[in-house]
Amino acid sequence: MTIFDRSKHVYVSPDFDEVVKDTIRFFNGTPVHPIPAPKRFHGTGIYALYCIAKSGIYSRFNLVNRTAFHMPIYVGKAVPKGWRQARQLIPVNTQSYELNNRINQHGRSIDLAENLDRSDFFCRFMILEGKESDLIGTVEAALIRKYQPIWNTLIDGFGNHDPGKGRYAQAKSDWDVCHPGRPWAIKCQGIHGTKEELLQSIENFMARLSVEDA
Amino acid sequence: MTIFDRSKHVYVSPDFDEVVKDTIRFFNGTPVHPIPAPKRFHGTGIYALYCIAKSGIYSRFNLVNRTAFHMPIYVGKAVPKGWRQARQLIPVNTQSYELNNRINQHGRSIDLAENLDRSDFFCRFMILEGKESDLIGTVEAALIRKYQPIWNTLIDGFGNHDPGKGRYAQAKSDWDVCHPGRPWAIKCQGIHGTKEELLQSIENFMARLSVEDA
Repeated sequence: MTIFDRSKHVYVSPDFDEVVKDTIRFFNGTPVHPIPAPKRFHGTGIYALYCIAKSGIYSRFNLVNRTAFHMPIYVGKAVPKGWRQARQLIPVNTQSYELNNRINQHGRSIDLAENLDRSDFFCRFMILEGKESDLIGTVEAALIRKYQPIWNTLIDGFGNHDPGKGRYAQAKSDWDVCHPGRPWAIKCQGIHGTKEELLQSIENFMARLSVEDA
Repeated sequence: MTIFDRSKHVYVSPDFDEVVKDTIRFFNGTPVHPIPAPKRFHGTGIYALYCIAKSGIYSRFNLVNRTAFHMPIYVGKAVPKGWRQARQLIPVNTQSYELNNRINQHGRSIDLAENLDRSDFFCRFMILEGKESDLIGTVEAALIRKYQPIWNTLIDGFGNHDPGKGRYAQAKSDWDVCHPGRPWAIKCQGIHGTKEELLQSIENFMARLSVEDA
């Protein structure tokens, strides 16, 4: 009982890596829709938002995403209720609308931003339900690692929610500094980076973006 | 672009289910050790604790786990730092000791409990590192669903940490009520379930436990 061999405890699964790659291939083949999608749909899973703005600070996306939606501006997930505890398997037929609702929330954030136009944005999503819902976190992480979307990496805060009464002492997120408009973000009083610095860092990021990245 | 077919967005992976099942098979074949393990080891992953107490409220475990470690009393995970964001892949060779340390913390909790004896407890663990670390949450959830270990389900709070100064107004966890000893738990002043009721619920749980469950 006291002999110890670490290697006997290490699990290696080439199959798992293949599953993740297949998931990403499937995701990149799903249809792209405006925001909101043409029809309300139920389910949980992951999504990407794409920008094709012809002008403004994100206009390079128009070039990169011209022939196909190559490079997301944001990747996110919508998980089943109780997922953090991960104690129960969510039945496939549970009619919850987390993924649909999350994408629509993002549409409202974009609407509220004074320098963004919702018609420049599109969404792609993949529903992962039942046992496949266990893949949600993995696939989100893999997509973010692969694409390093600017609103997941450089400019943080797009996915934030209203921090709520009594918590407005915190700083505005970088995203809210760059894209002012959300009423609750305007209430945040903490010290944040300057808009000039952040816009400059976006410019630098976009200048390096090429179709080959995607 | 406006035609919508939900089924085109639903990803189904029989392979993923097989990966999870294989992971659990591997886990159940890993060596079992006392706590702490004979040698300090690095890595992240998941673990199970087994009880084989011959007397006391958990003595039925001695029957269930007599021929093999069938039924865990607790299942947990130790995740890489920064895992909640899941933004970066942790290199395989990072020498962190999360899993080892987590198991040893549990050993100290058991030591401190006035009605538990560490020599009645054993651990099994599986190291998941590199890309496989993405499986940690999935496998933990699958094991908890499969075994419904009593300290994950009925008697909550074993895995808690010291809530810290200024937060001792909260209630003691059920685990701390049943197994008094952790000094920080003694400081918790909130109203909790009675020990009698909890011990009765443990008795009921244990009475239903059989080798066939495992």
